[in-house]
Amino acid sequence: MDGVREFLLAAKHAEMRLLEQLSLSCELVATVSALVHALQRERGASNMFLASKGERFVTELGGFRADVAPCETALRAALARLDTDAARSAGSVRLFSRIAFVLHALDSLPTLRKRVDEYALSPDELAASLGRLVSGLLAVVFETADAAADPEVSRALVALFNFMQGKELAGQERAAGVAGFALGGFDDARKQRLEHLIESQDRCFEIFVEFVDADMVLRWQQLLDPRDEAPFKRLRAAARSGATDSTTSELWFSLATMRIDAMRGIEVVLTQRLAGLCARRIADAEADLKCHRNMLDALGGLDTPDGSSAALLPATPPPLRAADTVLDGGDLPTGLGRSILDLVLAQAQRIQQMGDELNAARTALEERKLIERGKGLLMARRALTEEQAYRLMRQTAMDQGRKLVDVAQTVLALGPLLGEPVAPDRMRSSR
Amino acid sequence: MDGVREFLLAAKHAEMRLLEQLSLSCELVATVSALVHALQRERGASNMFLASKGERFVTELGGFRADVAPCETALRAALARLDTDAARSAGSVRLFSRIAFVLHALDSLPTLRKRVDEYALSPDELAASLGRLVSGLLAVVFETADAAADPEVSRALVALFNFMQGKELAGQERAAGVAGFALGGFDDARKQRLEHLIESQDRCFEIFVEFVDADMVLRWQQLLDPRDEAPFKRLRAAARSGATDSTTSELWFSLATMRIDAMRGIEVVLTQRLAGLCARRIADAEADLKCHRNMLDALGGLDTPDGSSAALLPATPPPLRAADTVLDGGDLPTGLGRSILDLVLAQAQRIQQMGDELNAARTALEERKLIERGKGLLMARRALTEEQAYRLMRQTAMDQGRKLVDVAQTVLALGPLLGEPVAPDRMRSSR
Repeated sequence: MDGVREFLLAAKHAEMRLLEQLSLSCELVATVSALVHALQRERGASNMFLASKGERFVTELGGFRADVAPCETALRAALARLDTDAARSAGSVRLFSRIAFVLHALDSLPTLRKRVDEYALSPDELAASLGRLVSGLLAVVFETADAAADPEVSRALVALFNFMQGKELAGQERAAGVAGFALGGFDDARKQRLEHLIESQDRCFEIFVEFVDADMVLRWQQLLDPRDEAPFKRLRAAARSGATDSTTSELWFSLATMRIDAMRGIEVVLTQRLAGLCARRIADAEADLKCHRNMLDALGGLDTPDGSSAALLPATPPPLRAADTVLDGGDLPTGLGRSILDLVLAQAQRIQQMGDELNAARTALEERKLIERGKGLLMARRALTEEQAYRLMRQTAMDQGRKLVDVAQTVLALGPLLGEPVAPDRMRSSR
Repeated sequence: MDGVREFLLAAKHAEMRLLEQLSLSCELVATVSALVHALQRERGASNMFLASKGERFVTELGGFRADVAPCETALRAALARLDTDAARSAGSVRLFSRIAFVLHALDSLPTLRKRVDEYALSPDELAASLGRLVSGLLAVVFETADAAADPEVSRALVALFNFMQGKELAGQERAAGVAGFALGGFDDARKQRLEHLIESQDRCFEIFVEFVDADMVLRWQQLLDPRDEAPFKRLRAAARSGATDSTTSELWFSLATMRIDAMRGIEVVLTQRLAGLCARRIADAEADLKCHRNMLDALGGLDTPDGSSAALLPATPPPLRAADTVLDGGDLPTGLGRSILDLVLAQAQRIQQMGDELNAARTALEERKLIERGKGLLMARRALTEEQAYRLMRQTAMDQGRKLVDVAQTVLALGPLLGEPVAPDRMRSSR
């Protein structure tokens, strides 16, 4: 009995520590989302500053840069709260690596700003550099979502990650638009990039909608209200058709910014709900643990097999069987022996159910990872741009009536047959 | 730099703790495999004892029971070494629950034995009870394999798990044969059960062969040498055809036992190699950590951005991109800044590759889980025996030219459409 009791409680304790760790990760995610938003605003202003050769957005830029600082401080504080000493999961290994990458990028931020001030960067170079930092920050959210073992928290994180990714693509669309409008027109490459950004954005928001409740969907639909979106959509259509006028660059910027700021409102609600959800889960687990312990105490020394009941070995082992059959009462002993077994089996069943729900949430992440990796492989082996690689996969999927993720899997399986990686020099020039 | 350094080292430390924990789990697996073998021998002897109404195997039974004791002690000692206090992963939660189940079953073993001594159990009931305990022990191995984050260790555990599962099915075949031969013949239900056990065994050993090296395959082929296996195969064929003679029950038992004991020889080699592999991985990680720390110390205060190189933000974030493109040198800074970045990126790439290899190993586990769960669901909802459920799925797969795992997934997706669970009473009577 002692061993049974010990391991039942150990399982509960491990689950609680897992939730506490998850709660810290969710705090971290909230600070990441604030920092990403601040960086997106700085990127937008820097972009306008560079595109106007320093004539515009001088004041705003200083303000936006100053806004980044407290967000960076908050992130570093959240990182300091992470318990790195006891971490021992594959998820932590990945998370910490991502964080190291992000911190390295943040350390280089002052240098990047200096080069903006000296006009030593093109708007595209600036957008690419800050885009990588943001992408690293999004990877932190991705790893948190991937490591979450609670289905509801996992769903919330998948929704948040996809929303943030969509918002970042909206930010990149804003930057691409600014550059195009400033140049007085969109060539084919810029038009293609714009299409790609719009499509990928839509895909992210579709996944987001799948993973949130009706109330959140409503908020999202309100944000998309055609009456509010009409001016932005008109400029977007102009850019896509190539019929533009350089005077609309600032209008585009401010309309796109309004749209992104409205998205930020939804993002804040998402992070607040996530925090509430984590807190509830921890409270539930604490209550559960207490109740578990009380039951075990009550059953305490009484659970010695007395041989009076039927076969005393548990009827069904928890693993490798359907949840439905786990509670089949087969040859269960009666009375107190049965009560302990109920605890063991109920716990096994709950874990099985959680696993099923989790798998559903993770599939969305897994598919995204596969598609991104298939795309990356095509880019490297075929010297394609991101857009070209994505379009090639999508076209193949449409032609063959297959899912995009299946095509990505085929690409990855074919890996070595696609030829040698193209040298970095050639890759850069093809971008 | 401090933050970067801290999190790079934290990632390495987390990886090392993960490996140390894995090493303890592998020790645990070795004790589990010894205990399973001892229980299988006790089950076989108890079976012969019950089938002969106490005329045979009286002495052997006492010896086999005595052999279980040190294995149980070793298991409990290995469990005591597990660090339950710091565990905080979903894998640990599941592992601890499985262990609680196993300990509960072990606590009931004395009562079970008493009932054997009193002939208060049928051979089938005994086989079922001990089968559940063994199945719980196998689940411990399964969870360890599922939680392993090192691809090579994971492959070794998948091989071992499938081998142990195959050996357990061979043990069940031995028991089914003893009962059939003792009764002087195999009715349709017993024949069907035998077929099922043989097929499932073959499937397990096929997966085992996929996950081991050539040397191990050779050992396996030597064990299967037709010259040695011929007598066993002859009796098996007799049982399958139903043309049997009750005097062969003991011959069947000793031939099947020789075969299972030979399997145990392979199992021991597998667990020894697993231990060696874990030890090497830990030594590698230690060396890696030391080297990592030295590099970071050497780079120490020198990594301040000096603005002299190109854009200082890292070229490519680790996440969501193909490993192939991670090391594309894009706009990397030169010199020392680049060296730190190399560390960050190399680590990210290694983690990506490990993830890919791990996924391959886990697929085998995942498919087994789905098939078992599909089978369980059919058993519960359609009041089928395990064999009937398996055959139904296999026939469907053959008819539709689909993989068994795809059919299992369909069964699970259809869950609610398959009707209400059949009451436990009816299920028991249909077994």
